[in-house]
Amino acid sequence: MATAGKVIKCKAAVAWEAGKPLSIEEVEVAPPQAMEVRVKILYTALCHTDVYFWEAKGQTPVFPRILGHEAGGIVESVGEGVTELAPGDHVLPVFTGECKECAHCKSEESNMCDLLRINVDRGVMIGDGKSRFTINGKPIFHFVGTSTFSEYTVIHVGCLAKINPEAPLDKVCVLSCGISTGLGATLNVAKPVKGSTVAIFGLGAVGLAAMEGARLAGASRIIGVDLNPAKYEEAKKFGCTDFVNPKDHDKPVQEVLVEMTNGGVDRSVECTGNVNAMISAFECVHDGWGVAVLVGVPHKEAVFKTHPMNFLNERTLKGTFFGNYKPRTDLPNVVEMYMKKELEVEKFITHSVPFSEINTAFDLMLKGEGLRCIMRMGE
Amino acid sequence: MATAGKVIKCKAAVAWEAGKPLSIEEVEVAPPQAMEVRVKILYTALCHTDVYFWEAKGQTPVFPRILGHEAGGIVESVGEGVTELAPGDHVLPVFTGECKECAHCKSEESNMCDLLRINVDRGVMIGDGKSRFTINGKPIFHFVGTSTFSEYTVIHVGCLAKINPEAPLDKVCVLSCGISTGLGATLNVAKPVKGSTVAIFGLGAVGLAAMEGARLAGASRIIGVDLNPAKYEEAKKFGCTDFVNPKDHDKPVQEVLVEMTNGGVDRSVECTGNVNAMISAFECVHDGWGVAVLVGVPHKEAVFKTHPMNFLNERTLKGTFFGNYKPRTDLPNVVEMYMKKELEVEKFITHSVPFSEINTAFDLMLKGEGLRCIMRMGE
Ligand SMILES: NC(=O)c1ccc[n+]([C@@H]2O[C@H](COP(=O)([O-])OP(=O)(O)OC[C@H]3O[C@@H](n4cnc5c(N)ncnc54)[C@H](O)[C@@H]3O)[C@@H](O)[C@H]2O)c1
Ligand SMILES: NC(=O)c1ccc[n+]([C@@H]2O[C@H](COP(=O)([O-])OP(=O)(O)OC[C@H]3O[C@@H](n4cnc5c(N)ncnc54)[C@H](O)[C@@H]3O)[C@@H](O)[C@H]2O)c1
Ligand SMILES: [Zn+2]
Ligand SMILES: [Zn+2]
Ligand SMILES: [Zn+2]
Ligand SMILES: [Zn+2]
Repeated sequence: MATAGKVIKCKAAVAWEAGKPLSIEEVEVAPPQAMEVRVKILYTALCHTDVYFWEAKGQTPVFPRILGHEAGGIVESVGEGVTELAPGDHVLPVFTGECKECAHCKSEESNMCDLLRINVDRGVMIGDGKSRFTINGKPIFHFVGTSTFSEYTVIHVGCLAKINPEAPLDKVCVLSCGISTGLGATLNVAKPVKGSTVAIFGLGAVGLAAMEGARLAGASRIIGVDLNPAKYEEAKKFGCTDFVNPKDHDKPVQEVLVEMTNGGVDRSVECTGNVNAMISAFECVHDGWGVAVLVGVPHKEAVFKTHPMNFLNERTLKGTFFGNYKPRTDLPNVVEMYMKKELEVEKFITHSVPFSEINTAFDLMLKGEGLRCIMRMGE
Repeated sequence: MATAGKVIKCKAAVAWEAGKPLSIEEVEVAPPQAMEVRVKILYTALCHTDVYFWEAKGQTPVFPRILGHEAGGIVESVGEGVTELAPGDHVLPVFTGECKECAHCKSEESNMCDLLRINVDRGVMIGDGKSRFTINGKPIFHFVGTSTFSEYTVIHVGCLAKINPEAPLDKVCVLSCGISTGLGATLNVAKPVKGSTVAIFGLGAVGLAAMEGARLAGASRIIGVDLNPAKYEEAKKFGCTDFVNPKDHDKPVQEVLVEMTNGGVDRSVECTGNVNAMISAFECVHDGWGVAVLVGVPHKEAVFKTHPMNFLNERTLKGTFFGNYKPRTDLPNVVEMYMKKELEVEKFITHSVPFSEINTAFDLMLKGEGLRCIMRMGE
């Protein structure tokens, strides 16, 4: 491409300060360095994690910053040493990576790459400790190695999944983060067998994706648990057969679930981030074979407490990170699940706006409206 | 047999009162009723659980009682409906059973039979709610469905594993409880792969059996953790490569293990019953793939506490009961592991006494000497 090796000027949404509306600015995007790739973003979505680090409550502020981590794009140019990707390849950026060389990448079980594991405090590239974004020569910080709220961004090759070029990027862009996180939690970690009973705690996008996993696995009963009764309607589209609001009961919700299911659910997946929901999700699984999976990110001071007999009675508790998917190895297959019409992605996309209206997407999320809002770059 | 259908008079060790030496008495053993089997016990061993229910501290006392649950014997006669066993069959009694019909028995994952799951308070047969033992017509209570401290005992067919008649009962009798519990915890639940690093917390008979499992699985590093430094010498026979005494360190033992192993052990198995050891056993496993297995029976008020991020970082915590072995289906195969000289059972047997000296076995266990003391019936 004519732009390879040169600085690209393009539009990006810059967060100048915590909690202040983003502003669309012209930024300079430097060429990719060793093991880096410059990607033209076509579609990006907004996830709670972006909002969380934009609000930056109780955090060391890293501003000005370009947020964004759920997206789909096309490789514009590659830096030295990049052999797996070439200009024109379709890619999904991922907030965590896969170096393919560390103990985690070599383990069949882990996806927590030592080199490229999510780092929310770092605002620069790991190669040289510098930013690739500038405005009038002043650096703008990166976010989780992706910074997709920009028409062009620079990403480590290990954080890019090369996907089927026929996959519509305006749909599969949401597989970059939350949807795969929930889906994988069920399919890769909880692994319900056909005919199982599965409880999902928290019916946000992540929980509904976990529910979609339960539906794909052939669960015959899917119990949604949420404090917000409005969530049931939407959840029905994802296969929810029963809904329980903990507020409607005097006893702990795990007891309600155990009674409803004659001893407990076969699998549960917690997608709230609330430690009490984590405890309930564990204690509601059946003795002998029940497996509970934690997905929600807890508070720093949260303490998980339970009687150890709950384990002794042959219950299993696991946690997962990005649904146990290895970004480069596994994400292309998730896209294929969509292409084969097994996985339904459209129902997660409730809104779509031009990139210039990115603050509308923030407003929707802050109001709790919808699941995913897609932003169309270049508009 | 000539005795079938008749009452058998024989010797049994009766616990008349909590904590008082057992006394060898002549007891009458009634014939087996429907689904029951009368077994001639040839060898029995003493386990902590016998001592615990003999001391009966803080328990509803169930006396007079015939204790004993680790044993090997031969079927003398069978009751109505028993088709799987016949007089002359060699069997291991088990404190928990397998009815083959409940949801747990039908599940591939569970061994916690609904019908025959351990019940420490019941002192009678489940069929008719009566005891099969009497002395001068006065009933003597059973213990966990086995009561093997008697030359003859009556056991539900679901609590008897039919084993290879060539297996020496004076050796394989110890596979009835503690040894299989520890062995199965490692082989069936923790499942270390060849070359793994495994930590075992608590080096009593159960922990050493868990260690034997790690050795059989080909673990390359086996770290024993015990508060008693004297345990290391014995543990070396079981493949222990490193020993850590939590008392030798100022920091929590999980931190010591994480440092020793460059990030944590691949698998850990807790065999202490102490909740702090349970927490350490969980927190010392490697993120990404570590699995911790709880075996020890905790206090009623114990609370397992940890930060939920320890799960989110892809650690798994499981508990097990009788090593996840289904007594009838799986125990014969454990005996075969011994017959093939894979599993070494002899090293668990540190003492042997005539049945008449059963109180010596109690003394040894109370003093913490040795691992298993075999009692030779009829002597
Ligand atoms: N969004 C992502 O991309 C992503 C990725 C990885 C992990 N996570 C984590 O997964 C969790 C869920 O993410 P989300 O985006 O779906 O969030 P969300 O806020 O949209 O949904 C959470 C849901 O949980 C419900 N809830 C809260 N406390 C509850 C309780 N005690 N019992 C029952 N329901 C309760 C809320 O009503 C809400 O509907 C978060 O902790 C997030 O950090 C999210
Ligand atoms: N014995 C059985 O047949 C059987 C069967 C099933 C379960 N269990 C349970 O397994 C556990 C172990 O049984 P056992 O017979 O081997 O007991 P044991 O008392 O012989 O061994 C326990 C060992 O743990 C050590 N220990 C105690 N607290 C510790 C701590 N905080 N850190 C490190 N080491 C510690 C002790 O020094 C001792 O060596 C018990 O809780 C028992 O109830 C036993
Ligand atoms: Zn890696
Ligand atoms: Zn996200
Ligand atoms: Zn059963
Ligand atoms: Zn025992």
